[in-house]
Amino acid sequence: MRARELGITVGSLPPGEHNAITDVAGVRVGHTTLIKGDATRTGVTMVVPHDGNVWADGVYAGHHRLNGNGEMTGLPWLEEVGLLHSPIGLTNTHSVGVVRDALVALEVEQRPEGVETWALPVVAETWDGDLNDVDGFHVTAAHARAAYLNASDGPVAEGSVGGGTGMISHEFKAGIGTASRRVTGADEGAEGWTVGVLVQANHGRRERFAVNGVPVGLDVGVDVIPGVAGPLPPGSGSIIVVVATDAPLLPLQCRRLAQRCSLGVARTGGVGENSSGDLFLAFSTGNRGMAGLGSDAPSVATVRTLANARMTPLFDAVVEATEEAILNAILAATTMTGKGGTTAHALDSGLLLAALARYGRPATPP
Amino acid sequence: MRARELGITVGSLPPGEHNAITDVAGVRVGHTTLIKGDATRTGVTMVVPHDGNVWADGVYAGHHRLNGNGEMTGLPWLEEVGLLHSPIGLTNTHSVGVVRDALVALEVEQRPEGVETWALPVVAETWDGDLNDVDGFHVTAAHARAAYLNASDGPVAEGSVGGGTGMISHEFKAGIGTASRRVTGADEGAEGWTVGVLVQANHGRRERFAVNGVPVGLDVGVDVIPGVAGPLPPGSGSIIVVVATDAPLLPLQCRRLAQRCSLGVARTGGVGENSSGDLFLAFSTGNRGMAGLGSDAPSVATVRTLANARMTPLFDAVVEATEEAILNAILAATTMTGKGGTTAHALDSGLLLAALARYGRPATPP
Amino acid sequence: MRARELGITVGSLPPGEHNAITDVAGVRVGHTTLIKGDATRTGVTMVVPHDGNVWADGVYAGHHRLNGNGEMTGLPWLEEVGLLHSPIGLTNTHSVGVVRDALVALEVEQRPEGVETWALPVVAETWDGDLNDVDGFHVTAAHARAAYLNASDGPVAEGSVGGGTGMISHEFKAGIGTASRRVTGADEGAEGWTVGVLVQANHGRRERFAVNGVPVGLDVGVDVIPGVAGPLPPGSGSIIVVVATDAPLLPLQCRRLAQRCSLGVARTGGVGENSSGDLFLAFSTGNRGMAGLGSDAPSVATVRTLANARMTPLFDAVVEATEEAILNAILAATTMTGKGGTTAHALDSGLLLAALARYGRPATPP
Amino acid sequence: MRARELGITVGSLPPGEHNAITDVAGVRVGHTTLIKGDATRTGVTMVVPHDGNVWADGVYAGHHRLNGNGEMTGLPWLEEVGLLHSPIGLTNTHSVGVVRDALVALEVEQRPEGVETWALPVVAETWDGDLNDVDGFHVTAAHARAAYLNASDGPVAEGSVGGGTGMISHEFKAGIGTASRRVTGADEGAEGWTVGVLVQANHGRRERFAVNGVPVGLDVGVDVIPGVAGPLPPGSGSIIVVVATDAPLLPLQCRRLAQRCSLGVARTGGVGENSSGDLFLAFSTGNRGMAGLGSDAPSVATVRTLANARMTPLFDAVVEATEEAILNAILAATTMTGKGGTTAHALDSGLLLAALARYGRPATPP
Repeated sequence: MRARELGITVGSLPPGEHNAITDVAGVRVGHTTLIKGDATRTGVTMVVPHDGNVWADGVYAGHHRLNGNGEMTGLPWLEEVGLLHSPIGLTNTHSVGVVRDALVALEVEQRPEGVETWALPVVAETWDGDLNDVDGFHVTAAHARAAYLNASDGPVAEGSVGGGTGMISHEFKAGIGTASRRVTGADEGAEGWTVGVLVQANHGRRERFAVNGVPVGLDVGVDVIPGVAGPLPPGSGSIIVVVATDAPLLPLQCRRLAQRCSLGVARTGGVGENSSGDLFLAFSTGNRGMAGLGSDAPSVATVRTLANARMTPLFDAVVEATEEAILNAILAATTMTGKGGTTAHALDSGLLLAALARYGRPATPP
Repeated sequence: MRARELGITVGSLPPGEHNAITDVAGVRVGHTTLIKGDATRTGVTMVVPHDGNVWADGVYAGHHRLNGNGEMTGLPWLEEVGLLHSPIGLTNTHSVGVVRDALVALEVEQRPEGVETWALPVVAETWDGDLNDVDGFHVTAAHARAAYLNASDGPVAEGSVGGGTGMISHEFKAGIGTASRRVTGADEGAEGWTVGVLVQANHGRRERFAVNGVPVGLDVGVDVIPGVAGPLPPGSGSIIVVVATDAPLLPLQCRRLAQRCSLGVARTGGVGENSSGDLFLAFSTGNRGMAGLGSDAPSVATVRTLANARMTPLFDAVVEATEEAILNAILAATTMTGKGGTTAHALDSGLLLAALARYGRPATPP
Repeated sequence: MRARELGITVGSLPPGEHNAITDVAGVRVGHTTLIKGDATRTGVTMVVPHDGNVWADGVYAGHHRLNGNGEMTGLPWLEEVGLLHSPIGLTNTHSVGVVRDALVALEVEQRPEGVETWALPVVAETWDGDLNDVDGFHVTAAHARAAYLNASDGPVAEGSVGGGTGMISHEFKAGIGTASRRVTGADEGAEGWTVGVLVQANHGRRERFAVNGVPVGLDVGVDVIPGVAGPLPPGSGSIIVVVATDAPLLPLQCRRLAQRCSLGVARTGGVGENSSGDLFLAFSTGNRGMAGLGSDAPSVATVRTLANARMTPLFDAVVEATEEAILNAILAATTMTGKGGTTAHALDSGLLLAALARYGRPATPP
Repeated sequence: MRARELGITVGSLPPGEHNAITDVAGVRVGHTTLIKGDATRTGVTMVVPHDGNVWADGVYAGHHRLNGNGEMTGLPWLEEVGLLHSPIGLTNTHSVGVVRDALVALEVEQRPEGVETWALPVVAETWDGDLNDVDGFHVTAAHARAAYLNASDGPVAEGSVGGGTGMISHEFKAGIGTASRRVTGADEGAEGWTVGVLVQANHGRRERFAVNGVPVGLDVGVDVIPGVAGPLPPGSGSIIVVVATDAPLLPLQCRRLAQRCSLGVARTGGVGENSSGDLFLAFSTGNRGMAGLGSDAPSVATVRTLANARMTPLFDAVVEATEEAILNAILAATTMTGKGGTTAHALDSGLLLAALARYGRPATPP
């Protein structure tokens, strides 16, 4: 059950049709989930920014680092010109390279004959070594490729799937989560904009976990639902957030959205712990046709930019959707036992609902 | 009454003696408050980093920008080498220059005879144009100088004082607020460290204001305590946060602390609104004697650095103290009428306490 | 005599009509020069980005820091959204504040009645304390205002004028210099673009000074033309570079131009010495009508962006024009004696021409 | 023949024993060179920062981006805390991932039993697709591993070796180059410091190539030594620069060194062309024992920092050594034919010496 199915509403803006990053037209998500034997609990998730050839037709993007104990490839070009030219791969810490080169190989395949160019794809990670044999390098190029090929629009599988398979958040089993928001109003035109968020959540300490300001982590406690007896201290993990929007944004405006992911992480109890790699990427599909990496672009392109004075509702949307996506990542996951017999327990939704009621915020199931 | 006097505790770490930025040994705060006639509601606050000659004996520092619709002078040298060589001035948006040059003049005065150097002081601002005749330029060099000269340790005046005189936060009258936290434990030595925070709070929308996760702003509402009928939309203001610590940090570590101010702002309801200048500065007094701007430094200095793996408790301290300092800024302020008859109402503490109780978080007065 | 009048050509691109930053249509430059008594040798220069109300109609801009021992106000908003909303003031290090607030006052004057807003102007500096009584604060708001009011298009006064009055570069008397380049070709349209550069040059050591790769500083030497017997080591100064272009650039693209100023500084012998404040700002007049600081902007604006793959010629133009502007700043200045009887000697153009000839690069006067 | 063997001296500081990055004690370099059949012209170079376990005993480091059309992994942690915890891999653009994961595997191997941690290695690249079948993914984990295992101190092989095998600079065959400088003087102690530089040079246009300010590229011309008839425009490549020093620097100070690589690139004729990935990394071996990624560090470490006021000689050293390393990269390479029969010609040293003589800078062979 997702948060809204339980009657939990985060914030005030309405979600899109699927309450998922795929509510932004053209965005697709695919997963490869690897659960084998006692200790393989990992995978790959791909977020594909649009339905064209993203290598040749980049989108404006920006990133933010809340804490840098992690990896996101492709940053130099993102920082230089604010263009994203690849699907975004999410996997475990030690498989970033294989996924990165697999994306290069996909670019080579899709490149028109006679064209010579290069690829600088974006791949990010969180560490699943509590449950997964992360040092065993179980992710292959074929797994990355499969995640790309099965990417689809519509509802997105959440929890222990894809790159999120072995992930743990606030000492609950977690993984992939998503949510979206609609920003409407006369100012933004009759139709308004959509903001979608997808997280790979592997961060946070139990005692700080909050839902709508309710101290659920403290209320539930580690006696009721045990924490994770992993080799590293609680909260050692990371969170990757991908934000998509169809609002027509320039690169620095995307970066502004990316920074607001921090605020959603903060509201659910993250502090960018020292060992966390909290890296956020936002892209806009509202401008296309600018440029590949090569010299095939028109000399001057016309693009659109939302007035900065109109951006606060988009910031609100990012904050709300990030909060809800983290909650969905936790709610969708079920208890998992992995490497060395370590178990990550799911958050019991009954206990969550009881905590919300106790703090004056009862859920109102639809 | 401050938050703790009302029985409101934020977070789990204990405060220092005065629950103020001055709990970091050597840090002093001074205010000049200008309230005259119908429309002068402004001032200057000075945070003095230590009790030596800060121009000649800088401290490591770092900053973070949650949103950049504001000013903080002195950033190029802070970014280049992470050294702060001046008191930190806080004032209104249109008086940054006069306070900046007044600090230069203080440096000239304090400079030993025969030495030739230059000053690049740090001054930040928030906009008090709802209540103050900000375009009248009422702050003078003498006001800045007075704030510096009256800086003292011990308890810090809060609310409508100094640079905070005309400020409004979450549509309540606000201004200067402060709080501190002690971080102890065997790892950090017998004595532990202190983290102090001072805010000049002029940011946020009413409906997003939260205390310990309780939606106080929505609960109180604008019918009960009116918002501010100013010329600009609610939430247009800014927040400056200054963090001091005696933990021995390097510049990048200070920057990590500065970024965590964002998380405290988020937890009380800020989103870094577009028109907000949310600029944060953190400095460490734990290393001294490195350098002035000139060539008078020793060739090689020995400094201390807290292990990054030990920093998370300091991050927690910054988040907690920022939250509490914002609340103190609001609680200390009383209703004020200023320019054009505009009134900014104080938050009634009874209503606050009622809201906390209603959401399962009753205050427990000492 | 300017470099080209002496027959010295830098690079391969042609200059604009005046070989000045004012070749970018709408850009104006004004100076206030203060030379009084024995020790006042300072001033203010204003670069006005276009002929409209720049406060209400910002231009895209970006900055770069080669070395940060200096000040440039207005950076937070430039970094956040890449918009410049003010004339750019250049003055001495200790007068940044007064010029900054004077620009705020100009904004207040020019603001339409009934509008309430704020100003975050850009002011940068270099240190003229070798020749000027910089601690005497001789620059007033009236001086800043006068520099703005007398700004004009057409040829730009160079050398010991305006903010450059007391400046010294590579141990020669220097100050303000300017140059421009035309970038044409089918790709960029029939008319092409103009890139203009203005420097306030106060940086560099004698022995590293080069013109077109010729080691002029070593060749001339300090025996022939004495260096400056100031209180600080040679090369302690700074250089500010302002780049203007009518090419339609986005903020990150402006930032790319700003960074290329470093390369022009490097080619003439600068290394971003420790005590230098080498701060560069580039703006594009090729997009207008986006936004003021307030909410008066259209919801969505259409802007143009030059393909990144077409930007290298603009980079070349910035490098060349920066080199030539530094040379012009030195050539236009005449020997000056100031504070404490210190003298900064001009570069004798005959010696320069002899050095160029000796190294196989003879000048070819027109 | 290296530059100095030809009698070409760059700058004024003396080189170290081997005039190589390995002059910094403990630094080792290894190469795997892949030249097979008609079209495999690539490889891997490893720079190992010290002779301990660099995974557990990181060194302070900082990076700079002159232009971002390239990849360097590991940046988030470098930016966050300024620590480098891995050998630095250099390879072709499309093999970054395989080298990155191979370094992770080496970390796993070297990790003490019972410890659980993660690796975030640094790998950078330039594009060798003119000569190499870069889309064929010929680099394997074994190649990366071999480059690491054969790393040694002493003289460093230059030119078409390792990651530099298929590289081209200023339209001459190029590859790996190195140089070093000694910075002495009473201020820095009796022994002084060493600065070493290693480049993988694949950047620049012929007509801009300069040696000691002499326009060698124009003088030689493309009629005498043909350029490269590759699929992409000249100057499309990139340059990676690695700087090592034993001076005791903090992270921001390392970043300052990294930025000065731009100035060496500029002086030899680079402009950070749009398609270039000009990424620079500097590290200091002068502080050790601070931290691994885990929690095994001492609570507080004592480190040393060179006074910022003493850093200019180090900046000079970086500029000089970068210039000379680029020249060495070109001089060491011999003409190579690769993919599709494309040939990259070597710079004839006789023509170089003739150009230097013609412009008043004759070489003085030892």
